[in-house]
Amino acid sequence: MDCRAKWVAGGETSDPIVISSRVRLARNLKGIPFPGAMSSKEGSEVLSRVATLLEQKAPHGYEVFYMAKMPQVERLALVEEHLISYDLANKTEGAVAISRDGATSVMLNEEDHLRIQALLPGLSLEEAWQTADSCDDFLEAELDFAFHEDYGYLTACPTNVGTGMRASVMLHLPALVESRQIGRLLAAIGQFGLMARGLYGEGTEAKGSIFQISNQVTCGIAEDEIVRNLKAVVEQIKAQEQAHLQKMVALQRAKIEDRVYRALGLLTNARVLDSSEAMVLLSELRLGVSAGLLSLPVGVLSELLVLMQPGVLQTVNKVNLDALERDIKRGEIVRRRLLEVLGREKQ
Amino acid sequence: MDCRAKWVAGGETSDPIVISSRVRLARNLKGIPFPGAMSSKEGSEVLSRVATLLEQKAPHGYEVFYMAKMPQVERLALVEEHLISYDLANKTEGAVAISRDGATSVMLNEEDHLRIQALLPGLSLEEAWQTADSCDDFLEAELDFAFHEDYGYLTACPTNVGTGMRASVMLHLPALVESRQIGRLLAAIGQFGLMARGLYGEGTEAKGSIFQISNQVTCGIAEDEIVRNLKAVVEQIKAQEQAHLQKMVALQRAKIEDRVYRALGLLTNARVLDSSEAMVLLSELRLGVSAGLLSLPVGVLSELLVLMQPGVLQTVNKVNLDALERDIKRGEIVRRRLLEVLGREKQ
Repeated sequence: MDCRAKWVAGGETSDPIVISSRVRLARNLKGIPFPGAMSSKEGSEVLSRVATLLEQKAPHGYEVFYMAKMPQVERLALVEEHLISYDLANKTEGAVAISRDGATSVMLNEEDHLRIQALLPGLSLEEAWQTADSCDDFLEAELDFAFHEDYGYLTACPTNVGTGMRASVMLHLPALVESRQIGRLLAAIGQFGLMARGLYGEGTEAKGSIFQISNQVTCGIAEDEIVRNLKAVVEQIKAQEQAHLQKMVALQRAKIEDRVYRALGLLTNARVLDSSEAMVLLSELRLGVSAGLLSLPVGVLSELLVLMQPGVLQTVNKVNLDALERDIKRGEIVRRRLLEVLGREKQ
Repeated sequence: MDCRAKWVAGGETSDPIVISSRVRLARNLKGIPFPGAMSSKEGSEVLSRVATLLEQKAPHGYEVFYMAKMPQVERLALVEEHLISYDLANKTEGAVAISRDGATSVMLNEEDHLRIQALLPGLSLEEAWQTADSCDDFLEAELDFAFHEDYGYLTACPTNVGTGMRASVMLHLPALVESRQIGRLLAAIGQFGLMARGLYGEGTEAKGSIFQISNQVTCGIAEDEIVRNLKAVVEQIKAQEQAHLQKMVALQRAKIEDRVYRALGLLTNARVLDSSEAMVLLSELRLGVSAGLLSLPVGVLSELLVLMQPGVLQTVNKVNLDALERDIKRGEIVRRRLLEVLGREKQ
């Protein structure tokens, strides 16, 4: 199995601040209890009905992966690509259908029967919304979704009732972190019905200055309004990040350049590289691109962010490695890819 | 003024462990008190007699530099090149005559009237001894040296009486430092009449795992015996360093490679580089060459060891820089030189 998520592999974004945009829709089948309460037989029924539909009739074509049939390391890889959640990876009845272009994934039997996700590189919320919406339209024409006239789509968790929609963006905000503006800013977005989390969802740390920002409210607001609202706030945050970054560079250009190029030096030379350090160093490169100090396609930085994760690293390279072997392999992958895009020979 | 010391610029050594070899002879003029007790007029007399001789009659040709006429930064540069001592740099009556090939320097009015030094790259004690000896022969034919039939050459400090000779080598011993064998070893060399010091002489730290080892005894032993004795011990130490290094690499090759290449990555990318860090990183590269993990002419590492020092850096580049500017310039010099020898384009 190779890396398949479009935001990773197919991403031709030039935006160093907005890494990716996601829209997710929660849906459930009428007449079957939510996954938390359903029997194993009901779980299988959900799988067979939806998976078959997506594999055989959906436009674009989907491939279905059953959690029960996948080695742990491959499930981990899907989590790292943001195609499935940690929760789904551990569910026996869980599965995911992934579109051939890697833009859409439909999780089956996670918290809800269906979670339709569209995930694209850069700031592309409208496109992600259209992508998820067209998958939803196709499925709704074939399936009977649990829907209430007053409340909208019914979901396992009340916070998702209504549109069942969560839109989110993954942002790289190093200048706001360093200027200590990030706390104030993330507190303020609550007023717009938004919330912030780390790279791998709720409760995870914002390593490498990466944050996910998403809508909290799913009910009493139209889908396109959710998208418009989030996009407007993200553009504000982006402008603030740029302003703070320009200020940092204006005040201490040599030191910032030094940080960026040291990171490049380490990433193109280290022989043993753990994922925490790689995360921090890739963040420095992204800052360098953002500040105009370094010329590098930012898509490669997103790609490496995922390729260097332990699950993807072992899955893509078809190997089982212990911690030190992974750190060696990670160093090799990062080094080769960066030297390749920098047009230098292999070291 | 450019870098002139032969061990730095002309060094075509391939020995990563023995950086340089030095032989120094202390001599005084008969009938004039030692520098510590002489009048300013007597000091001038020493200068005029010896300087004129070396400039006008000596084989190879010498250029004389008077401390009183040199800016502080240029005197510092000569100290950093190991052509003069810290003490001489601050003496009003002090001067140094340097041979055109940069192999011989004669300090005037340091602790003794004359200190003839020959300094060569690699383990080349016999050659250094011959070089110093032939300069001594030339001078002795023209001057009357203070000499006692029983004691030999008379010197200001009793520890130099006799041959007036000190032979020393500069060694890079990272594996012995890391395996904590260095303390035991340096204690043991005392038994052979030898002593150890840091890179810039007595009382200085052994930064970057560089040590100077020299003879303590100058009396009651012939010059060639001093050289033979020191050389034999150095060859022993060198063998031990190699053995420990091979053991380190055998036990944890990936980690050692990682250290070496990270150092290379930082040195070829840093935009701000202070001298302590540069020293440590250059030591890592030298270790890499020594262990066969990195292919690089070691002469370049000796060259950079000196070119990056604050005095040489400003003198060679004809600039006066504050601390941050020096660190930026140092980064540039080290980066360009390394990329040049690695055959890569400028970054």
